[in-house]
Amino acid sequence: MPSRVYLDWNATTPLRAEARAAMLAAYELIGNPSSVHAEGREARRLVEDARSSLAAAVGALPRNVVFTSAGTEANALALSPGLRGRSGEPVRRLLVSAVEHASVLAGGRFPAGDIGQIRVTRSGVVDLDHLRALLADGPPALVSIMAANNETGALQPVAEAAGLVHEAGGLLHVDAIQALGKIAFNINAVGGDLATFSAHKIGGPKGVGALVVTEGLTGLEPVLRGGGQELGRRAGTENVAGIAGLGAAVKAALQALPEDAERMTSLRDRLGNGLRCIAGATVFAEDVERLSNTVLFTAPGLKAETAVIGFDLEGIAVSSGSACSSGKVQPSHVLSAMGYDATVAQGAVRLSLGWSTEPDDINRALEAWRKLGNTLLRG
Amino acid sequence: MPSRVYLDWNATTPLRAEARAAMLAAYELIGNPSSVHAEGREARRLVEDARSSLAAAVGALPRNVVFTSAGTEANALALSPGLRGRSGEPVRRLLVSAVEHASVLAGGRFPAGDIGQIRVTRSGVVDLDHLRALLADGPPALVSIMAANNETGALQPVAEAAGLVHEAGGLLHVDAIQALGKIAFNINAVGGDLATFSAHKIGGPKGVGALVVTEGLTGLEPVLRGGGQELGRRAGTENVAGIAGLGAAVKAALQALPEDAERMTSLRDRLGNGLRCIAGATVFAEDVERLSNTVLFTAPGLKAETAVIGFDLEGIAVSSGSACSSGKVQPSHVLSAMGYDATVAQGAVRLSLGWSTEPDDINRALEAWRKLGNTLLRG
Repeated sequence: MPSRVYLDWNATTPLRAEARAAMLAAYELIGNPSSVHAEGREARRLVEDARSSLAAAVGALPRNVVFTSAGTEANALALSPGLRGRSGEPVRRLLVSAVEHASVLAGGRFPAGDIGQIRVTRSGVVDLDHLRALLADGPPALVSIMAANNETGALQPVAEAAGLVHEAGGLLHVDAIQALGKIAFNINAVGGDLATFSAHKIGGPKGVGALVVTEGLTGLEPVLRGGGQELGRRAGTENVAGIAGLGAAVKAALQALPEDAERMTSLRDRLGNGLRCIAGATVFAEDVERLSNTVLFTAPGLKAETAVIGFDLEGIAVSSGSACSSGKVQPSHVLSAMGYDATVAQGAVRLSLGWSTEPDDINRALEAWRKLGNTLLRG
Repeated sequence: MPSRVYLDWNATTPLRAEARAAMLAAYELIGNPSSVHAEGREARRLVEDARSSLAAAVGALPRNVVFTSAGTEANALALSPGLRGRSGEPVRRLLVSAVEHASVLAGGRFPAGDIGQIRVTRSGVVDLDHLRALLADGPPALVSIMAANNETGALQPVAEAAGLVHEAGGLLHVDAIQALGKIAFNINAVGGDLATFSAHKIGGPKGVGALVVTEGLTGLEPVLRGGGQELGRRAGTENVAGIAGLGAAVKAALQALPEDAERMTSLRDRLGNGLRCIAGATVFAEDVERLSNTVLFTAPGLKAETAVIGFDLEGIAVSSGSACSSGKVQPSHVLSAMGYDATVAQGAVRLSLGWSTEPDDINRALEAWRKLGNTLLRG
């Protein structure tokens, strides 16, 4: 029996050897990082080392990094009414792009009535004219735009958005969860005020994330209260091993990035071209800049649910978009926002690549699609 | 140089071999438990196995277990206005004992004006007469009382409290974080409606906890939203390895409980007696039932901060109460609630034991106290 081919890296990645080693080392330490004794201080050191690693990787100060239990919690923490930058008034409403992750669309602590949606183009890119119009019409806003979309891979114009947002007296949150480790990301270079990250998208463990803010940002309201951890911004005993794993993963991911990105772009393009030549597949967001690892495609009459199961039976792990809906295949809100109808939004399959993806994995995926395309689309 | 003696098990425990093995196994799995492919289903199985283990350990149904990032998050999730049992109205206020953990005192989603405090006795046990009076005076309440106090070890009358609370149409949340693995705990036996747990107090990893509810409880409002995980009660990719570690730890802890408790009671009593015979130490809550592993003591003129550092320099890791205040030694709110003045509340030292504590560790601690008592209390 041939080995499995894993092409669902945007859902989660294997654990990197560096992260595993860091976590095993952390397991040897007994202490609680909040304890003052030697055992506590040793655990504290691991947490602070990881904080420095992440801060250095994304251009922030260590003191402006808040570790959380995942990207979802980091996003919930970021979306906090009352945030204010060095100058300017506190934000009083939230504008999110229509293709954000469900944890951003949930709106954090903003009341539903204070949340607006920014349209995207047919290629899944944020419509800056619409953002400009929304900003002009209301009080200072926190704007949340992801650096790269998790389903299509489409890169978003976050630097341009930052300019518009700041000009209007607002703040920009960048969900960089899919971008980290796949493109260069520096919070200052893009002009973000807050950015969020997740370990398990870059070879770290599941269950760890981080919010990073720029110096001078105030008004961040904790989601979890009752302990002094994370400078009072996030109570609860730290996931020491997980945080150490995140720190090691981010270092390894950034070191590998240039080579990985080049290799993956070539594999991705081969995959996209191959899919298109079989059963009339269309690749989404192909006319805009995308992550080097992501291919979201459909074909006339394709049903994502059946296709994902079909690929699975052929030994290929793929997905129908975000994995965050508990096993249910639902129409993609991303494709709906891009103007596709429900049939298309329920018929898209995502293949996402990673550092251990080999040319032969692409061959196997195309072979499976040849077989499935013929079967699934026959009717 | 003699090896270190770790006597701060109530802050956090070493990782059990069983938990480490479960976590290493989890690291081999690539998938996201929300993914439908084989890799996702394998990860899902680990999470569900752990859910069954915890449910069985505490007398709940697996579907009523919600995994969280720590005890703090589990407590925040538990303290949700609008909760209602099978019969009865939704709760509209919160009553917490004055000796609860900071994450419970923070009150979850209840507005500050809707939170009342239940007094405790001089021995640190919840005053049931005061609870009765508070219940009589207002709308249905969620009452939060811990099974055992983390600082003194004093067991709380949760079963009696449950009777009073239910009679008054309220619901009982039991923070069982320190109790689990140290005394038998069954949510139905104590009559709790919600109970919270933390992995790192029982030999599991830091950064994982759980909320367990009884069948029929409704109205639980998620703290983290935006994904369908945990049946919609807690969004965010699961900490698969951590959850597997929690499952393995709870099984191992409960298996070892009877023997551990007996051995620890004997060590604890030897420690308490020894401390008392040196420099006039007093052990708190000694006249009530306590956890078998906890000794909180003071002596006239003792300063906790200096004592903890003194013990540390002698190679003994101890604490001044809860570890959750980020390295700062503050007056214990538990001792203040017990009616002790600030001098005493700043002068208490906690020694807590665990499964690998040996008689010689107790000798070493007493030796250190003999030396420190003479030095620190001289002035």
